Amino acid sequence: MIDLRSDTVTRPSAGMLAAMTSAPVGDDVYGEDPTINRLEETVAGLLGHEAGLFTVSGSLANILGVRALVAPGSEVLCEASAHIARAELGAHAAVSGITTRTWSAPAGQIDLEQIRALISADLGRYFVSTAAVSVENTHNFGGGSIQHAYDALADELDARGLPLHLDGARLWNASVASGVPLASYASRATAASVCLSKGLGAPVGSVLVGSTELIREARVWRKRLGAGWRQAGVLAAAGLYALEHNVERLAEDHANARLIAEVLADAAPGSVKPDQVETNIVVADLAATGKSVPEVVEAARAAGVLVGGVGPTQLRLVTHLDASTDDCRTAAQSLARLLAA
Amino acid sequence: MIDLRSDTVTRPSAGMLAAMTSAPVGDDVYGEDPTINRLEETVAGLLGHEAGLFTVSGSLANILGVRALVAPGSEVLCEASAHIARAELGAHAAVSGITTRTWSAPAGQIDLEQIRALISADLGRYFVSTAAVSVENTHNFGGGSIQHAYDALADELDARGLPLHLDGARLWNASVASGVPLASYASRATAASVCLSKGLGAPVGSVLVGSTELIREARVWRKRLGAGWRQAGVLAAAGLYALEHNVERLAEDHANARLIAEVLADAAPGSVKPDQVETNIVVADLAATGKSVPEVVEAARAAGVLVGGVGPTQLRLVTHLDASTDDCRTAAQSLARLLAA
Amino acid sequence: MIDLRSDTVTRPSAGMLAAMTSAPVGDDVYGEDPTINRLEETVAGLLGHEAGLFTVSGSLANILGVRALVAPGSEVLCEASAHIARAELGAHAAVSGITTRTWSAPAGQIDLEQIRALISADLGRYFVSTAAVSVENTHNFGGGSIQHAYDALADELDARGLPLHLDGARLWNASVASGVPLASYASRATAASVCLSKGLGAPVGSVLVGSTELIREARVWRKRLGAGWRQAGVLAAAGLYALEHNVERLAEDHANARLIAEVLADAAPGSVKPDQVETNIVVADLAATGKSVPEVVEAARAAGVLVGGVGPTQLRLVTHLDASTDDCRTAAQSLARLLAA
Amino acid sequence: MIDLRSDTVTRPSAGMLAAMTSAPVGDDVYGEDPTINRLEETVAGLLGHEAGLFTVSGSLANILGVRALVAPGSEVLCEASAHIARAELGAHAAVSGITTRTWSAPAGQIDLEQIRALISADLGRYFVSTAAVSVENTHNFGGGSIQHAYDALADELDARGLPLHLDGARLWNASVASGVPLASYASRATAASVCLSKGLGAPVGSVLVGSTELIREARVWRKRLGAGWRQAGVLAAAGLYALEHNVERLAEDHANARLIAEVLADAAPGSVKPDQVETNIVVADLAATGKSVPEVVEAARAAGVLVGGVGPTQLRLVTHLDASTDDCRTAAQSLARLLAA
Ligand SMILES: [Ca+2]
Ligand SMILES: [Ca+2]
Ligand SMILES: [Ca+2]
Ligand SMILES: [Ca+2]
Ligand SMILES: [Ca+2]
Ligand SMILES: [Ca+2]
Repeated sequence: MIDLRSDTVTRPSAGMLAAMTSAPVGDDVYGEDPTINRLEETVAGLLGHEAGLFTVSGSLANILGVRALVAPGSEVLCEASAHIARAELGAHAAVSGITTRTWSAPAGQIDLEQIRALISADLGRYFVSTAAVSVENTHNFGGGSIQHAYDALADELDARGLPLHLDGARLWNASVASGVPLASYASRATAASVCLSKGLGAPVGSVLVGSTELIREARVWRKRLGAGWRQAGVLAAAGLYALEHNVERLAEDHANARLIAEVLADAAPGSVKPDQVETNIVVADLAATGKSVPEVVEAARAAGVLVGGVGPTQLRLVTHLDASTDDCRTAAQSLARLLAA
Repeated sequence: MIDLRSDTVTRPSAGMLAAMTSAPVGDDVYGEDPTINRLEETVAGLLGHEAGLFTVSGSLANILGVRALVAPGSEVLCEASAHIARAELGAHAAVSGITTRTWSAPAGQIDLEQIRALISADLGRYFVSTAAVSVENTHNFGGGSIQHAYDALADELDARGLPLHLDGARLWNASVASGVPLASYASRATAASVCLSKGLGAPVGSVLVGSTELIREARVWRKRLGAGWRQAGVLAAAGLYALEHNVERLAEDHANARLIAEVLADAAPGSVKPDQVETNIVVADLAATGKSVPEVVEAARAAGVLVGGVGPTQLRLVTHLDASTDDCRTAAQSLARLLAA
Repeated sequence: MIDLRSDTVTRPSAGMLAAMTSAPVGDDVYGEDPTINRLEETVAGLLGHEAGLFTVSGSLANILGVRALVAPGSEVLCEASAHIARAELGAHAAVSGITTRTWSAPAGQIDLEQIRALISADLGRYFVSTAAVSVENTHNFGGGSIQHAYDALADELDARGLPLHLDGARLWNASVASGVPLASYASRATAASVCLSKGLGAPVGSVLVGSTELIREARVWRKRLGAGWRQAGVLAAAGLYALEHNVERLAEDHANARLIAEVLADAAPGSVKPDQVETNIVVADLAATGKSVPEVVEAARAAGVLVGGVGPTQLRLVTHLDASTDDCRTAAQSLARLLAA
Repeated sequence: MIDLRSDTVTRPSAGMLAAMTSAPVGDDVYGEDPTINRLEETVAGLLGHEAGLFTVSGSLANILGVRALVAPGSEVLCEASAHIARAELGAHAAVSGITTRTWSAPAGQIDLEQIRALISADLGRYFVSTAAVSVENTHNFGGGSIQHAYDALADELDARGLPLHLDGARLWNASVASGVPLASYASRATAASVCLSKGLGAPVGSVLVGSTELIREARVWRKRLGAGWRQAGVLAAAGLYALEHNVERLAEDHANARLIAEVLADAAPGSVKPDQVETNIVVADLAATGKSVPEVVEAARAAGVLVGGVGPTQLRLVTHLDASTDDCRTAAQSLARLLAA
């Protein structure tokens, strides 16, 4: 079975497992897990921040990061299909009391004009204040797109004294694809998260970065949300291994996604624009094929390929380190046959 | 001083005060205030709903109404400048744990295409579900605009089985201006609020309407939020008086607003489009006048006219029962002189 | 019908209504209601605090007062039958995210030994911190009891640097009965609330007092909870009238309560201890009478007397300005006949 | 260094690590991690419940378990030094909106009389309802005590139709020490949690058990709190290994704790009552020794023994599988010298 539903399905390799079993661990609630400490320092360093916090998920890293920037009753702005708005179960409101207003843009892009119109000038204490803007880079439901106006937004927010939150679950992909260093992205944000368990292949975990003070507070809230952990160094070791071995190779995933896009574009013209596939996610629109999403998902499964639906007529394929170029070509050809049938 | 900052500044008239002092009252926490009971039944009847709840503010009526429709962690959609998004201090998130996504449209209008794109099809329990759409009619920060696609949205939501929330703080104005009966608007919504202390001139209070069960739950949450009250029949009496005496006369306020708009449009061409003034709110854009908002607000005050700023270059004037046609003409002429100077 | 269910049932007198209709009002959201401003200043002065905030209920004053002292995730300590623990619908947790631990004592009294054992020494940031202690004086479910260890607790908390919250809904009664000035009680607390609509007879309203900064914050949260109001000066006028006319006369209510207690103690020995009736509340235990609470409540109603149950075998009678000495004697005699029957 | 601060400091053994690296894993957000599924079923079976949920911490299992039983604004009763009241950072209020009232008893025991007095009969919807009682067994801050009135409380709650929540972080210890089967305890509760990373030695993780429906809801809220995880089967494998190898051996830890207690009781008479050491926790009171807690903690560390303070005059030692009988004897003798010095 070739599983292209998500890059979260990646599993630890033999090398990663070996790293996990040989790492020293300790009680992280006491701050005594040396492997976690090393991971947090390493990621903070890579991203140009003072400190890091290892969390059980990217959602948690975002929950803690946004709440560090936005008080209850204030608002964060984000694109309408951002992960924090769509896929975190309303936690920013339900857990943190934070409200949201949204702009909508193709591929989940930053739209400076809309953002400027949304940012609430200080109208006094009886109005909701815009306290941060959050950007997802690459943008998952936007099809793995890189945020092209990222620096322009960061400049705008600097000028207004507003903090930027970066949901960098797939920042690795953005950096490898664009050639922009990780820190060039992340250091523009006051709080940023990255995920180790998607394209990087670690079994569990994300890292939130920010100032020492921001991370100190986030650590307390992590505990309050029930997500402090003990000897999680076994997981942090996987993360460290992933940083060493699995970042540069994301370029292969990107090439594989482009390959898939080209095969599908040939088979079902108009379903995909290959040159818009910037990283490891391919979204194919079935509207013109006359096939339904559940029908194609089912037929693909029967043909040994797992893919997912992400909208009424849209199919998503995600490449990753557990799917080789051959796997991806095979999967694309199977799908091409189904779409052309 | 002619006060056109808001129609909330209205004060009880002698007739209203007399009604307040002669009304029988009781302990509303026990459900024993006959005047409150009569007000709640009267408003529910007017709006085509089973039951009503008298609340201390329109914000509270909205907080209780939206929470009746949307569970913590789910979302309500609204226009980006809606009162619930901008002027209720994030209560829907901070108090109710509800998250929001927004569309943006001129004059705060319903934009069906954007709303359809935002409504989240049921993608499973790990995604945020759209649980309701909220519409403000008339739309305060949209310049008192009437929602022209109201029925079309209601039809769309009916078809999808999604409830509509109506923030009808100024529904009286919408109804008087459009000729559409109150119940024709409000009965399309599962929960609706109306305000008695704006154009209607009561000192305090709004009413939430909905089903008997919805109101029963809202009553408990009103108490939980600390807003149960005792012998508030003195205020309800003002509301009943307002319903009898101050609804039809809103047409005068609308005419006065149009008058002001015409005077300003003459004095500062392009600042106002009089034919877009549908009800009792005039928003004038000072951009072309070369004057700043604080400067004009201050000069107007010196000339005996109170107005407010509602944006970087926008001035707002609101007509109401405590400002006669002469007052409004005088105020408009004073402002015209300032803008033309 | 003689209504002794609660002192909240009091209704505005003719004099009070006259005061209400002649008071100048304005828009309190803009801080422009002169009567509210005067009430807030007057009560703050009486209670020895810098500033006051007029609220729609005593529950709201407590919600705002406790949240000003205790951060989300921290705790307030209180007696297990305190109003904030029992009768505010869990708002301190549900709205403010504050947790509670409790001591239990006869008549809801302060128990210094238990409180000392509960106060959490600072065990580090992974433990819940005790952030305040709240005391209700007089204590409603404790039978209108005055807190005799009030100053000792205040001294203890001062020594530890912990703030005291005073739920003074019936502080007027405590002061009149004990002779201790209001400010001698309230100035020991960092935040204190008093109620105008119980024994004082105003239709609606309480006042929270504290420092200027505390009240400024509370004003924002009052708005966030939907309980900002507009021309509520009509209600504030009732409060000011009550302060002038209805405080000293509480002594009559206390005498009437003692009279009732003596009649009941004669009729049903052991049901009440008259010398424990310190203010305007009488709690009678029916255990030895062989009658059930619902049975007696119903029979009393048939005899023209309204009383309430407050426990499996307990009946509560509350005296107030709308029940004269004759009313109270009549009611007590009716009940005496029922209990002795 | 002999670390007796907590049984959370335990680290995975070589055998456990081998089990972790050979376990099949999958994406648990999709329900596809076979090792997690096996752990959840195994623990549910052991505890006599339908279903289980693997969580990152015991706090999280408690947060999810209590919120399944208690609605926002309702209350859970617990002992005043329970883990849920003291060591979960107020999450039950701050995250779930649940309020708490507490009883206090020596060794954190169930006190039926106090509990009966606290349980709130249904006084109507304007009063806080008691929705559950929570019991910690063994009780951490109570010194690892077994709850002796557990069945009596369960019977009482059954009779009242109230659910019991069991914080069974160390239920393994209670069961091994008392001989009562795990399911005899846990099946009396509607929701129960157990911890794998304390005495059982797994690096991370707890399991919540309950009905299929309760666990389905808890799974959604786990995700909402940001604590869904992906290939956490590596951790679940450690849990399964622990269940097979590390439960019965807890008897050794209990014997070691008794040994420590006896040595300390000899050296500092009155500091410990050895026959009250029921499981793996020893609390020594230094009051009579004239030594301070920080002083003894520091001197012990210098002597190679890590212990913790848990109160103004109290020291805590916890035995576990990484401290042999020799280690414990050595540690006890070192401490004995310090206390007797
Ligand atoms: Ca692999
Ligand atoms: Ca993975
Ligand atoms: Ca008004
Ligand atoms: Ca009266
Ligand atoms: Ca009253
Ligand atoms: Ca461990």
